[in-house]
Amino acid sequence: MSSSSNSLEKNDIIIIGGASAGLSAALYASRQGLKTVLITKDIGGQALLTDNIENYPAFEHIGGFELMSRLERQARVFGTEFIDEEVTSIVEDSDHQHTKGFIMKTSTNKEYSTLAIILAFGKTPRDLDVPGEQGFKGKGVSYCAVCDGPLFKHKSLAVVGIGDPLLDTALLLKGMASKVYLIQRTNTPVGAKDTIRLLQNEKNVSFIYNSVVKRINGTSKVHSITLIDTKNKSKESELVIDGVFVEMGDIAKTDFVKNLVQLNSNNEIIVDKYCATSKHGIFAAGDVTDVPYKQAVISAAHGSIAALSAYNYLQKLKGKPPIKSDWRTTIKK
Amino acid sequence: MSSSSNSLEKNDIIIIGGASAGLSAALYASRQGLKTVLITKDIGGQALLTDNIENYPAFEHIGGFELMSRLERQARVFGTEFIDEEVTSIVEDSDHQHTKGFIMKTSTNKEYSTLAIILAFGKTPRDLDVPGEQGFKGKGVSYCAVCDGPLFKHKSLAVVGIGDPLLDTALLLKGMASKVYLIQRTNTPVGAKDTIRLLQNEKNVSFIYNSVVKRINGTSKVHSITLIDTKNKSKESELVIDGVFVEMGDIAKTDFVKNLVQLNSNNEIIVDKYCATSKHGIFAAGDVTDVPYKQAVISAAHGSIAALSAYNYLQKLKGKPPIKSDWRTTIKK
Repeated sequence: MSSSSNSLEKNDIIIIGGASAGLSAALYASRQGLKTVLITKDIGGQALLTDNIENYPAFEHIGGFELMSRLERQARVFGTEFIDEEVTSIVEDSDHQHTKGFIMKTSTNKEYSTLAIILAFGKTPRDLDVPGEQGFKGKGVSYCAVCDGPLFKHKSLAVVGIGDPLLDTALLLKGMASKVYLIQRTNTPVGAKDTIRLLQNEKNVSFIYNSVVKRINGTSKVHSITLIDTKNKSKESELVIDGVFVEMGDIAKTDFVKNLVQLNSNNEIIVDKYCATSKHGIFAAGDVTDVPYKQAVISAAHGSIAALSAYNYLQKLKGKPPIKSDWRTTIKK
Repeated sequence: MSSSSNSLEKNDIIIIGGASAGLSAALYASRQGLKTVLITKDIGGQALLTDNIENYPAFEHIGGFELMSRLERQARVFGTEFIDEEVTSIVEDSDHQHTKGFIMKTSTNKEYSTLAIILAFGKTPRDLDVPGEQGFKGKGVSYCAVCDGPLFKHKSLAVVGIGDPLLDTALLLKGMASKVYLIQRTNTPVGAKDTIRLLQNEKNVSFIYNSVVKRINGTSKVHSITLIDTKNKSKESELVIDGVFVEMGDIAKTDFVKNLVQLNSNNEIIVDKYCATSKHGIFAAGDVTDVPYKQAVISAAHGSIAALSAYNYLQKLKGKPPIKSDWRTTIKK
């Protein structure tokens, strides 16, 4: 596949993703004087889901929103251009004779041209994958209790998914909703014992055991879910609710780059210690990669590594010397 | 080699080094409830050399001292014990039957016992390696213009070394010293053109070309340096000065661990993406490792990775489950 970029403005670096990794990459890239564009529809990412981060080095406490706002401001100060779009495809740009490049397309069919790319779009909540789910997204089906919980004040909700995040979601929603049904596949609650005890002591929380969701029902918005009894698969029941919160963990939505860069079995992008992918000119950073731990400071560092490596890649393309790998912070002049 | 640890208090993790990497490792390790000790004679490390860091994500500007103080405070809040010593040797502890451990000795002959180690002691300024240098350290020979420059107000100084840091050192010192001699091996100045121009316009800065330092002379303190003419090696001259600032770059002083962990050709400790070294139970983080770029945020992230990996190593030793690699920040309850 190829595409012409004659009419397009050429960027040095396009970063896809606007959380810790993407924003730090933007800060480092634009600080090096590179023409840097960051494309995202979601500035802040998953850090927005918490109001108390205690382990970002240099802050005893900071809210996710404040941390992300600070990172965004810093990237803007150095000149990063922000574009509110979703990238849907990337192809190599055949117009470049000596310096390879790439063309991106977005969901609104806009095109952007760039010499280097940093993939830093993190992870995305996993779908429950039942009929009705796609159509009712934003109409009663939600994947973020912190974001959407307040929309369901005094309503009744079902909470479905896996692990401790499911319990945490129920815990958060029981303070807002009139009723929270916690759907469990097993015949006992699963997860952290102290959280389970807290939930069991709440009058407006009910555990529904031996049940899985078969279908989400409604007309203009969610009206009920259909449950199957896991002990007796032919037994179905309908639970009338106003909303469904899905907590199935997160996935790396890397399908649109799988023909360009190598992925691991979790669909995470494989990077080396320079944050280089298997494709020259494409770098990746943060939770979307195979980095072993997912933490804001690790993503931020990953973003800076990807940007410095991309800078060196561009310098090499232009026949200029790379940044020394081992330089000092400059003494103020 | 082995050593008995019967009488010693057993620690979970001992971290050697007190800058970005060590302090972040301490924060993460003690936050996991591990008995964590940090041994260093130098809290803050090289970040103290700058009063304006612009690229630590989340701070548009922060001084090195303030950044390091914040990291130190955060580690103390979670319970890290700080010990003001220099570790000089590490041996495996043969007392442990099932759980391997290590014994450290310090320069004051104290001993410490630990199950896991994080090496995070960064880099150290390289010696010029000429006669007289060792004896006059702290008596006219310095490796840190920001730290020691004010001690040489209205004195005459020689500045010797390599690269742009040498020019930056001269630039800083010319505002304090009465006279700065910049010793250059070549017949023209080497380095950033704008800095060279600034220095050449200063009345109290003189470039001395085609020269290398043969010897540092003095009695109780530095009195002069002997220079050799690089064009005519038999030609020597004496330059009378009050101090010599050496700027030869930095080295990883890893000699005392080279029998335990694998090093690369720069004497940096080789780590994998978990910050594990070649030795089980020993992890490493930051500038002392083969991480490709040396930056405060990268060291901080490295420290957090090393601490999480050390935690998982200890959990395995104790037959307990590891931290999930891909966990979320907990929603506040």
